[in-house]
Amino acid sequence: MKKITIQFEPEGRRIETDSEQKILDIAEAFGIDIRSECGGKASCGKCRIIIQDQSNVSEVIGLERNHLSESEISDGYRLACCTIAKGNLVVEIPEESRIRIRRIQITGMELPVKLEPLVKKFHLILPKPTLYDIRPDAERLLDALESEYGLKNIKLSQKVLSNLPSILREKNWDITAVVWNNEKLIALESGDTTSTLYGFAVDIGTSKIVGYLVNLINGETEEIVYIENPQITHGEDIMTRISYTLEGEKNLQRLQRLVVGAINSLVKQACSKVGITNRNIYEFTIVGNTAMHHFFLGIQPKYVSYTPYVPAVKSPLNVRASDLNLASAPEVNVYVLPCVAGFVGADAVGDVIASGICDSEEHSLLIDVGTNTEVFVGNSESILSCSCASGPAFEGAHIKYGMKAVTGAIEKIKINPETLDVTYKTIGNEPPVGICGSGILDGISELFRAGIINNRGRFNQIECERLKQQNGKKEFVIAWGSETITGKNITITQEDIGEIQLAKGAIHTGVAITMRRRGYTKDDLDHVYIAGAFGYHIDPLSAKTIGMLPDIPTEKIKFVGNTAVTGAKMCLISRETREKAYNLSKNIQYLELAVDPDFQKEFVNSMYIPHKNIEEYPTILKLREKSGN
Amino acid sequence: MKKITIQFEPEGRRIETDSEQKILDIAEAFGIDIRSECGGKASCGKCRIIIQDQSNVSEVIGLERNHLSESEISDGYRLACCTIAKGNLVVEIPEESRIRIRRIQITGMELPVKLEPLVKKFHLILPKPTLYDIRPDAERLLDALESEYGLKNIKLSQKVLSNLPSILREKNWDITAVVWNNEKLIALESGDTTSTLYGFAVDIGTSKIVGYLVNLINGETEEIVYIENPQITHGEDIMTRISYTLEGEKNLQRLQRLVVGAINSLVKQACSKVGITNRNIYEFTIVGNTAMHHFFLGIQPKYVSYTPYVPAVKSPLNVRASDLNLASAPEVNVYVLPCVAGFVGADAVGDVIASGICDSEEHSLLIDVGTNTEVFVGNSESILSCSCASGPAFEGAHIKYGMKAVTGAIEKIKINPETLDVTYKTIGNEPPVGICGSGILDGISELFRAGIINNRGRFNQIECERLKQQNGKKEFVIAWGSETITGKNITITQEDIGEIQLAKGAIHTGVAITMRRRGYTKDDLDHVYIAGAFGYHIDPLSAKTIGMLPDIPTEKIKFVGNTAVTGAKMCLISRETREKAYNLSKNIQYLELAVDPDFQKEFVNSMYIPHKNIEEYPTILKLREKSGN
Repeated sequence: MKKITIQFEPEGRRIETDSEQKILDIAEAFGIDIRSECGGKASCGKCRIIIQDQSNVSEVIGLERNHLSESEISDGYRLACCTIAKGNLVVEIPEESRIRIRRIQITGMELPVKLEPLVKKFHLILPKPTLYDIRPDAERLLDALESEYGLKNIKLSQKVLSNLPSILREKNWDITAVVWNNEKLIALESGDTTSTLYGFAVDIGTSKIVGYLVNLINGETEEIVYIENPQITHGEDIMTRISYTLEGEKNLQRLQRLVVGAINSLVKQACSKVGITNRNIYEFTIVGNTAMHHFFLGIQPKYVSYTPYVPAVKSPLNVRASDLNLASAPEVNVYVLPCVAGFVGADAVGDVIASGICDSEEHSLLIDVGTNTEVFVGNSESILSCSCASGPAFEGAHIKYGMKAVTGAIEKIKINPETLDVTYKTIGNEPPVGICGSGILDGISELFRAGIINNRGRFNQIECERLKQQNGKKEFVIAWGSETITGKNITITQEDIGEIQLAKGAIHTGVAITMRRRGYTKDDLDHVYIAGAFGYHIDPLSAKTIGMLPDIPTEKIKFVGNTAVTGAKMCLISRETREKAYNLSKNIQYLELAVDPDFQKEFVNSMYIPHKNIEEYPTILKLREKSGN
Repeated sequence: MKKITIQFEPEGRRIETDSEQKILDIAEAFGIDIRSECGGKASCGKCRIIIQDQSNVSEVIGLERNHLSESEISDGYRLACCTIAKGNLVVEIPEESRIRIRRIQITGMELPVKLEPLVKKFHLILPKPTLYDIRPDAERLLDALESEYGLKNIKLSQKVLSNLPSILREKNWDITAVVWNNEKLIALESGDTTSTLYGFAVDIGTSKIVGYLVNLINGETEEIVYIENPQITHGEDIMTRISYTLEGEKNLQRLQRLVVGAINSLVKQACSKVGITNRNIYEFTIVGNTAMHHFFLGIQPKYVSYTPYVPAVKSPLNVRASDLNLASAPEVNVYVLPCVAGFVGADAVGDVIASGICDSEEHSLLIDVGTNTEVFVGNSESILSCSCASGPAFEGAHIKYGMKAVTGAIEKIKINPETLDVTYKTIGNEPPVGICGSGILDGISELFRAGIINNRGRFNQIECERLKQQNGKKEFVIAWGSETITGKNITITQEDIGEIQLAKGAIHTGVAITMRRRGYTKDDLDHVYIAGAFGYHIDPLSAKTIGMLPDIPTEKIKFVGNTAVTGAKMCLISRETREKAYNLSKNIQYLELAVDPDFQKEFVNSMYIPHKNIEEYPTILKLREKSGN
């Protein structure tokens, strides 16, 4: 190994490093963003870089040829995960490989709750010990908590005890006791500090982590902060991260530390904005999908991903923050919301709580759209849930020009049914780079409405300069190369449509079967809640048109945003809500779609656009007839 | 600084080290024993060394002259704590400065108890998950614990959960659950391991730590191990160690780590003898005096030593072993026995439990003799306790030729009342080095019985070649220089007698006042128990003669040994005994002698030999009359 210098363009940043490393690893080590969705396994093909002078890098390997055309290779394109630096080098990161500012859904619907945090402060002025009153410090304190506040049998931990004698005497026996759940003294503060009390609610998403700094005195969210989930360096998706844990004994621990480190930095960031420190935070509540839930707790989540998909635990947990290395006072509690099943996690329980479908007699459908889409159907009587393997297509994966909802992504598409002309809108109104989930959904809906594709998702035989054929495969141009940042056309291909049919078919199947088993028809539904970052930006008509949602009046549909984190926040400030979460995890029934007798047939029917039984989509039928296709 | 070589004699051990350090510190760092009772503060004068060629050491300082005579200094004597090494050097450690093998009391009286450890094992073969039974691992396990063993609401910690999925599958869902207190799952073992279950009971003494490795299946003690308390390097006595904690922020933590490290090494030693590992130990019980109790828990004990002498806590504690860095499975519990007061610690509660004075209607006096002597008076109805500041005289401190009960210490003395000739016995039957506690007690008793000292402890005007006068101070020769290892006479001085009068007076005062307040006369006593290492070796008649014990029939006196550790062991194997310990800590009344109206007068009277009111010692009176003095 020797020291080499690499210059990354277009920023022109020069770094010095050891030779014989992969360029992707070097970039990661120096905080230089290069897209990678497979964690450096040469399977996503997203880490494209350009190296004009290739005399100082390893040769092109077969895996790269799966993703790069011959002409690209001759233009100097490489995959950063396959290219080893051997000497000084200039690396260009093209636009399509850059990580752009992502649209993040950090707020969500939140219902008012009875403000009753589990952690409370009690101010005390203790009588000083004398030779006639030799009660030990702990007993003196506990006696006062009982006589002044009626708190009985409060437990004291060794961590609190170790500091007890000095803190009691610091301000002359004037202290504030921090008590959790009326059962445990978790900290002592010198003097009267009862006016300051904070908690922190966290949603650990596969790709982002959102934190709410909450004032527990008034229940207000004072700061909202978020960060990319740093586990992403070990894989964009959960399966890649699980594989990573199987590669080395310490890797599970590493992933746990990464997520905890990210939460610690969120806490720091939020606290400094409000002018407090992490020692002021006296409880955490956590949601996340079951895999993130397990990673956070240091539990191997691999069995969640193998049939029969059982999690290690589903009930709510109270864990000491210090056991998880969360930066806080040592005895602070972390309440982890319960899960329902392997693919219906604590985040989905947060959705149920924050949408309130469990509180009302009215009938609701709740969908949190993601790589796995969680579906809940029911009301205060009972709720049935399922999980649909909708896949990552809505996040842009397996879509030729697919991308996440970052700057430059086409997010809205309209096709004039007469002229077949296309108008689109990008995030940040920048020149288009690709198409994000809501865009592709719009696009396919519009292709269908304009009669360019049929109800099986196949391109019709029509004359249109936008409908191209490449290597015998059809694709429809959404943005011409003259408009895009790469200079290439951005298209929706026949294969892209197939991917979206699979994804929406999976969701529709889950919704249809869950409603059927709960005894609902679509006319029974009073409310449809769409939760999650993706859902927040989709056009409800497009979603209905392609058959992702049932054909229900748009006014019944409500986009509720990041209800996972607002559910966690509600649990942070309310004992009642925690009881509700506990009951939900016990009572929500989970429907295993794979063993449902209707599953196969329903899935096949749901692949049609909008559905094989078109009579289930009367509104869509009417609209399409109106547009003459 | 430079590298220097020091040769320690008589072993001839050569070590290389940095210059400019104190020789005591160097010796400590290399594990070379030099006596030191003040922790290197030049106040005990015990770390005497001889350096013939003093060209490479710092000059004699004033503090050394407090302990060394001019002739000793000219012979090369120095104090190791005051002497800085500056170059190559030969250091001789004279006999009197060597730490010798100490007589340790590791066994004690133990009462039979109902065998019911708090930690139990349960073997389970779980049904495997299927798509029709998707209960999470934790719920599957808890369901089986409930249905097969009736255990409800068992708590699972994060540490156990993190290992749960893999251990359940290791032997195909055949596992053993380790449950603490029928409430918490603390570990899982693969397969059926119900035949192996161990616990560890510990007495943390100021000078030694004793551990019992106990088989929790049959309640047998399988190994007894002990070690010097390594805190001794920071002071022989508690006060010196407390001073040390005030010298640096991390020092308290250091003392805590030292004691925990010692326990870990005891565990390792005991386990390897039995062929198990520390992962087989599923509970610890701990006793110690209040300061040791606090040190072990990392609690600052300084307020115990300041009036009004309040401890941080007295109730029994359950602490996670891993929170204290005890080497064991992470969720293993440590039960710390309760204390009664600042100077009546958990070790004394162990004494009460193991002696059984709390179980019987008969009336008992229990005394654990030490630097602080704990006294208990009562029966199953109620017990009154006090602590007497008896000081370290019985351990040899402040006694001219005093020493601990190590090889070469005179432990028994007889004086012929006719000839005034002396016979003695040493520990190990080696040539005498000094006198230990039981020896000095014998000696003073014999001096009194032989009429050499009067009832005020003053030497009488008698003719005897053993009665010498040095600088106007009288002393009585026990061993002639020709018999001793140092070649010097070993004597009991007038000042030594005064020290012992103070010590025994303190104990008698405590015993007398506690008995009075409990409403007992000495004739009410059915039993007198003498606990502790020192007590085990004293002659009961000598103790009565000098008035340390009341004048009670010798057959009522029982030496019960190390009941602190046997009390801890009884708590380890018996839930009932733990309940008893809890009740004792709540119900034993503590009498603060200093505020008792009789204290001053009783203390003055108790200084007499045996007592000012000689009618309280009819037996002694008779014996003395018989010997004609």
